[in-house]
Amino acid sequence: MTILANDLEYVREHVRKVPNFPKPGIIFLDITTATKDARSLELSIDFLYEKFKDEKVDYIAGIESRGFIYGAALAYKLNAGFIPIRKPNKLPAETIKESYSLEYGNDTIEMHADALKPGDRVVIVDDLLATGGTALAACRLAKKVGAEVVATAFVIELNPLQGRKKIEENGIKVVSMLDYDLD
Amino acid sequence: MTILANDLEYVREHVRKVPNFPKPGIIFLDITTATKDARSLELSIDFLYEKFKDEKVDYIAGIESRGFIYGAALAYKLNAGFIPIRKPNKLPAETIKESYSLEYGNDTIEMHADALKPGDRVVIVDDLLATGGTALAACRLAKKVGAEVVATAFVIELNPLQGRKKIEENGIKVVSMLDYDLD
Repeated sequence: MTILANDLEYVREHVRKVPNFPKPGIIFLDITTATKDARSLELSIDFLYEKFKDEKVDYIAGIESRGFIYGAALAYKLNAGFIPIRKPNKLPAETIKESYSLEYGNDTIEMHADALKPGDRVVIVDDLLATGGTALAACRLAKKVGAEVVATAFVIELNPLQGRKKIEENGIKVVSMLDYDLD
Repeated sequence: MTILANDLEYVREHVRKVPNFPKPGIIFLDITTATKDARSLELSIDFLYEKFKDEKVDYIAGIESRGFIYGAALAYKLNAGFIPIRKPNKLPAETIKESYSLEYGNDTIEMHADALKPGDRVVIVDDLLATGGTALAACRLAKKVGAEVVATAFVIELNPLQGRKKIEENGIKVVSMLDYDLD
């Protein structure tokens, strides 16, 4: 199945703009309206599937928690495994950790230490690419155990925050479905 | 595709038992090893798909956050929409809330107020059925806006905690893939 320009527009029309969330002055791009619509969900997964179906992907690693939504459906469609990348203290077995900078302070993500092994081909999935800090930290987790990051993949890319540039400067491919000029 | 008894055993073998998580004396059933294995993930989704493919399901509502993994892939396969049920203050637009009792204290879950409408047929999905408190609260959210709960569905059911009984007493169907006698 080929995803056409009007399919992309169909998904875009289902992304809701919510003003003043999580704080005043921010316009939040709400993907829950895009996953609620069955066709919009299907088109989003099929778009990502088309990008990776010939890439011999072993695993999709989804970033908590909206990355789980797109990542798990994509893993199923690709016949790949799904690995969760989570906030601290959520994963039950031994983990490895990476921290990244936020506007104020730091945050940390974790992956099970045995989730990936050397040579595994993994795609990192999240709903939205902003500054790229979280996705890059996820890439570092995968590389730390010797896995190969095929790409990072997003449904939405916020152009002005230049996350793509930051990820590509680290030699990692970026795939996104819809881009926005909001910041 | 029919899911056979040895398929269920294949998934069961991929659920990892982690002792002393989240606290001493508890054996945690870790589904990340079951989603990491592509065949185990596929069998789990296909099992749930077979249960609901003839039920005219409009939406899958997944409970944060492991319910997102199975719920989103199931929604994709069923050609249904996916609705997230989340912890407080995560959803950006107007929400409705329900609280439920924990061993000590209460917890609350939220759903967007416009996520479901009267007559919508929804399946509530989570990874694991313990006491059933969270799933029942999710059912109340769906019913509050007039939706019809086709069933609650889980990959794992912990028999001794009697969540099934509690949910069925409320007139709601329970589907689970694997049951365990651990408590």
